[in-house]
Amino acid sequence: MDAAEFRRRGKEMVDYVADYLENIEQRPVYPDLEPGYLRSLIPNEAPAEPETYEEIMKDVERVIMPGITHWHSPYFYAYFPAASSYPAMLADMLCTAIGCIGFSWAASPACTELETVMMDWLGKMLQLPEHFIAGTHGHGGGVIQGTASEATLMSLLAARCKAVRRVQASNSELPEAEIFSKLVAYTSEQAHSSVERAALIGGVMMRKVPTDNSYAVGGDMLKKMVEEDKAAGLIPFYFCATLGTTPSCENMWMHIDAAYAGSAFICPEFRPLLNGVEYADSFNFNPHKWLLVNFDCSAMWVKKRADIIGAFKFEPLYLKHENQESGRHWQIPLGRRFRSLKLWFVFRMYGLSGLQAHIRKQVGLAKEFESLVRADKRFEICAEVIMGLVCFRLKGSNELNQDLLKRITNGREIHLVPCQLSSRFVLRFAICARTTESRHIQQAWHHITQLTFELLQDSGKKASCCRCKMS
Amino acid sequence: MDAAEFRRRGKEMVDYVADYLENIEQRPVYPDLEPGYLRSLIPNEAPAEPETYEEIMKDVERVIMPGITHWHSPYFYAYFPAASSYPAMLADMLCTAIGCIGFSWAASPACTELETVMMDWLGKMLQLPEHFIAGTHGHGGGVIQGTASEATLMSLLAARCKAVRRVQASNSELPEAEIFSKLVAYTSEQAHSSVERAALIGGVMMRKVPTDNSYAVGGDMLKKMVEEDKAAGLIPFYFCATLGTTPSCENMWMHIDAAYAGSAFICPEFRPLLNGVEYADSFNFNPHKWLLVNFDCSAMWVKKRADIIGAFKFEPLYLKHENQESGRHWQIPLGRRFRSLKLWFVFRMYGLSGLQAHIRKQVGLAKEFESLVRADKRFEICAEVIMGLVCFRLKGSNELNQDLLKRITNGREIHLVPCQLSSRFVLRFAICARTTESRHIQQAWHHITQLTFELLQDSGKKASCCRCKMS
Repeated sequence: MDAAEFRRRGKEMVDYVADYLENIEQRPVYPDLEPGYLRSLIPNEAPAEPETYEEIMKDVERVIMPGITHWHSPYFYAYFPAASSYPAMLADMLCTAIGCIGFSWAASPACTELETVMMDWLGKMLQLPEHFIAGTHGHGGGVIQGTASEATLMSLLAARCKAVRRVQASNSELPEAEIFSKLVAYTSEQAHSSVERAALIGGVMMRKVPTDNSYAVGGDMLKKMVEEDKAAGLIPFYFCATLGTTPSCENMWMHIDAAYAGSAFICPEFRPLLNGVEYADSFNFNPHKWLLVNFDCSAMWVKKRADIIGAFKFEPLYLKHENQESGRHWQIPLGRRFRSLKLWFVFRMYGLSGLQAHIRKQVGLAKEFESLVRADKRFEICAEVIMGLVCFRLKGSNELNQDLLKRITNGREIHLVPCQLSSRFVLRFAICARTTESRHIQQAWHHITQLTFELLQDSGKKASCCRCKMS
Repeated sequence: MDAAEFRRRGKEMVDYVADYLENIEQRPVYPDLEPGYLRSLIPNEAPAEPETYEEIMKDVERVIMPGITHWHSPYFYAYFPAASSYPAMLADMLCTAIGCIGFSWAASPACTELETVMMDWLGKMLQLPEHFIAGTHGHGGGVIQGTASEATLMSLLAARCKAVRRVQASNSELPEAEIFSKLVAYTSEQAHSSVERAALIGGVMMRKVPTDNSYAVGGDMLKKMVEEDKAAGLIPFYFCATLGTTPSCENMWMHIDAAYAGSAFICPEFRPLLNGVEYADSFNFNPHKWLLVNFDCSAMWVKKRADIIGAFKFEPLYLKHENQESGRHWQIPLGRRFRSLKLWFVFRMYGLSGLQAHIRKQVGLAKEFESLVRADKRFEICAEVIMGLVCFRLKGSNELNQDLLKRITNGREIHLVPCQLSSRFVLRFAICARTTESRHIQQAWHHITQLTFELLQDSGKKASCCRCKMS
């Protein structure tokens, strides 16, 4: 394919993408097929000779689209939002075309520098403490990671390195392996599975701190565990916090993971939830979730750049450069895409006001759904609705709620997934797509109550049938 | 920006991208600016209100383009190739629009399944042993990682987990931390820095195996080190091999990293270099380097899927699904893009024959450059030219060659970087851009000899000047 054909096909693809997103409501949000559906639809081997572009695009509709869970459908309420906007898509096209691998300043100065400045812009939008802003003379700064899992892992590794150095400073004889065996990390029992995974990768113990009635970690509980572990000869070194936790221990690295909620802190009314971030050593959230920047773009800041860079210092000659201090070896992969272009395009095309409006609209939709649930006495709300997520369930058994979810999933009109809160099976209703409107929420609720009606009728029948047999 | 504006701007962007790539030769391949250039060119904060698209695109030329090292310029011979092709770019546009986060089968069946089948296609193109192909009943299979660094890390972690289980099976009392402290991994002293990094992250020892005259690890040397370590009570568990190494030790996980060279194995004439892969537990190479699939797309196969999945088993309820066995938790990040679309588009638009032609053409260009170097008695070739990389230097001191590279870099007509081979400073000339032709190679060599002439004249002057003073 030469440039001339790319001009033609690229413009067709732009229209295909716009058509897809404009008409996404007409596709079933969740696919109706069994695992393994795809293999029989395509050949077993790559073709020896080129095929035409038309054949491929025909197969996109025949093979791919029937197997897509449409994350950008306004009937998608599962997992969490995956951000998407037209400015981010345009930036991504440019990123792909430039196609630089930004592993050092010299490999692509613009890629390295725009990232630093965009992370400062974003940090200021969140009113992060000054020490997180790279500015021109700061010790901290931001970096774009692929996912929150990577950010958590990087913070844990930096903390591990710092702890080993601290212990060895006062006891230079102690072998690293012995220190490792005593290191303890902590996180909330409600934390994401990726936090446990980071500890597993790093080869250190991870303790789960029990949460209170509002599913938050209390400082006292953490303090008690830390004291016990210290008394047992262990070395507490890392705490991955949920929002609002107050740190209570010295010499521990505190990482705050606000993967989803972080975006909301650009609104002054939500910013108080981030208070305490000034005590954190690192902070992370995902613009690719709720800030209209397409996946992947996870924003991470550290108080001291040296802590995270120092954890991995390797300088083979082919990466050396007189300006290597400006290199960005702050992540697991060496190579990286020019992701800050997406931030730049989105920030400028929306402006802070446009981004705030997006957050507020989606929180409003969640509140609207909450009201609908609260008005129906058969249901209960299971956790305070603060942002775009509503956790709710039918009053009654877990089985009843599992049955309801099964009917929702099989109905394929809307899509949502469950979670577990205090051993109760709970339905999660997350406001996801950028194009979700009030009418979709109303329709979703109507659909859920309809299925509930059928469910209760069916269980009524079963119950009376049982009585009948027993009599 | 609504869909209508996206249709317009998207088509403009397609033209911008085509223009950029068609006229890339007219831009200096390496930027002429100092670190920190960008910050003063843009505001300190994100705008409060939206800006226009025209303003942003004007800034792409004003702010971004002057700071780009143009990886796709035919005058770019630095680092390694970053793959780029129009079909891959079109696939990437589709991937961004679908915008699914493929962390489980249910989250996007097509994303999960196309990846499995594309990795089978690719495995067959490389004639990988049957046990690496997922097929319909195999125990192995492929996964797309972001980078080779991630693939190396995943293989080391899987090996670590397997080693701990093996040791604990015969000695269930031994604490994990003690086993960790005895684990030893091995790699070539010529291996990429990411291999050392993987060991550092995993908290295990890494030994570097000295290489022979052709910079390869000999099986005997490895065997000797392993025996010594065993005798000292350590537990050898992992070897990250360079190509062509024959494994000599039981119970060790062998990972083969062929990040760049791997693509060439689709050509029968290069495939013998991969012999021995049948002994490997995992194998990895980067289609995003040399197989026309834009970054990021690193292809990894494992002999036993269970080894790598088993190393991280976490199943929170919100990720559970009846078909979870088809989920793909084979990597560090949980979320992942629909990257297999790029493979599908590229394989079909080029066909195997087109991809082979690309590899052969670039190898031919490297041979052409090699001949030019060999014909000039002032220069020497420093390593056998097998694929697209020519390592060469001026006969003489390291300082002389450093001076030559400095002149090349400052000249900005072509761009290349150095490496170190047996403590000699060597220039690397890598065939990178898809559009590099014979005339670019000829021109590059002409430029290098021109600078060499000036360099030798200048040092001649300096030398005679010294003599003059001394007499």
